[in-house]
Amino acid sequence: MGANFSRMTQSTTEGAEQAIAILGGTGDQGLGLALRFAKAGRTVVIGSRLPERAEAAAHEVEALVPGAKVTGAGNPEATARAAIVILSVPFEHMAGTTKTVKDSLRPGQIVVSMGVPLAAAIGDGAVRTLGVWQGSCAELVASLTPSGVHVVSAFQNVSAHRLRELEHPVDCDVVVSGSPEPRKAVMALCALVPGLRAVDGGPLANARLVEPLTALLIGLNIRYKVPAGIGIRFTGLPD
Amino acid sequence: MGANFSRMTQSTTEGAEQAIAILGGTGDQGLGLALRFAKAGRTVVIGSRLPERAEAAAHEVEALVPGAKVTGAGNPEATARAAIVILSVPFEHMAGTTKTVKDSLRPGQIVVSMGVPLAAAIGDGAVRTLGVWQGSCAELVASLTPSGVHVVSAFQNVSAHRLRELEHPVDCDVVVSGSPEPRKAVMALCALVPGLRAVDGGPLANARLVEPLTALLIGLNIRYKVPAGIGIRFTGLPD
Repeated sequence: MGANFSRMTQSTTEGAEQAIAILGGTGDQGLGLALRFAKAGRTVVIGSRLPERAEAAAHEVEALVPGAKVTGAGNPEATARAAIVILSVPFEHMAGTTKTVKDSLRPGQIVVSMGVPLAAAIGDGAVRTLGVWQGSCAELVASLTPSGVHVVSAFQNVSAHRLRELEHPVDCDVVVSGSPEPRKAVMALCALVPGLRAVDGGPLANARLVEPLTALLIGLNIRYKVPAGIGIRFTGLPD
Repeated sequence: MGANFSRMTQSTTEGAEQAIAILGGTGDQGLGLALRFAKAGRTVVIGSRLPERAEAAAHEVEALVPGAKVTGAGNPEATARAAIVILSVPFEHMAGTTKTVKDSLRPGQIVVSMGVPLAAAIGDGAVRTLGVWQGSCAELVASLTPSGVHVVSAFQNVSAHRLRELEHPVDCDVVVSGSPEPRKAVMALCALVPGLRAVDGGPLANARLVEPLTALLIGLNIRYKVPAGIGIRFTGLPD
């Protein structure tokens, strides 16, 4: 832990000005985060399996956020260019995408798992979840990343629709789980998005408690007919 | 379904004025609900394994809520006297308590599972959960109740401390899951507690998505040092 950890601390300190890669940044939720981080002035690299799709998404961000520092690249290249790598691909592509970028990851980098094991991955509904051998999608990702890379669980329950409404706050809490220093670095990212509050979710395994919330919220969106997406707020937290 | 269902509908309609039994009503959360329902003018029967403990708890409610219509009884008798039976015992006593009252249950009654499979049940922490063969504590209870009895999942995440602060609203949403008519009857109970909002959680199996929230909240209470208990609110719900 020692050497990798100090490299990580260094990189996250520098990372305040370093690039954020969003793999699957061509999808609704990933593109929403890209827009928000670009609007906050951060350098964003959109990653996709197909570089040309990533570049098209980057142009979309540029069009909506004047002056955005955003580029597109294939997933391995996007990974190599960022301090924080956000995995925003559907659950069925989480393991595969992680394996694809494994050789581009280096000690000290932070990988953020946004995935939820929705049963939609096997053609069943998005209102139910699958059991994951490792306990959660985030732990599955952690089991596939090289030593020294820090996996953090976050952003699962932010509505893509609300992320993309750039003039409005997203009005949602997200629970961030992982080792203390990488967790703090990801909690700091949340502060870049108006109306998005980071809540300290403790160790990574707590993703098991957080990921099911997204399936619950998808069910509520359907039952209450709220296509914009229902969020959560924790009450009673100290300021 | 037909005959039982119409009996149930009848009993829940009458049930607006009928008794609510709270098994495990001598515990913190159960006693908190007893206080709130008694304060709202409802007839409450506190159940316990030991009738004298239930009677002592009923006296406690009477002392705090002048004019409360509350009595105490052994669990089977409390069950027989109520239209809605709330199971508020620790997870390790859920199956046993359900079996104990099985012969007192009748078609049309509603049984509410408040249980969460916290790992505390096996001497591990309350910030983690156990896997339940049936999928959730609520479905475990449903597997043990006679045909015609309607099991509903609710109230898992209401802070006992906030329930017992009778002068303050509890400031929390609860997700209620089960078949439509019994679910509506339990959602109506929530309206009796100031600051408690019922959210339609769909079918009973969704308790699998709701129960883990309590372990998450217990962890947050510890990390943020909020002994009074952190709650949740869903944002973006229609009024």
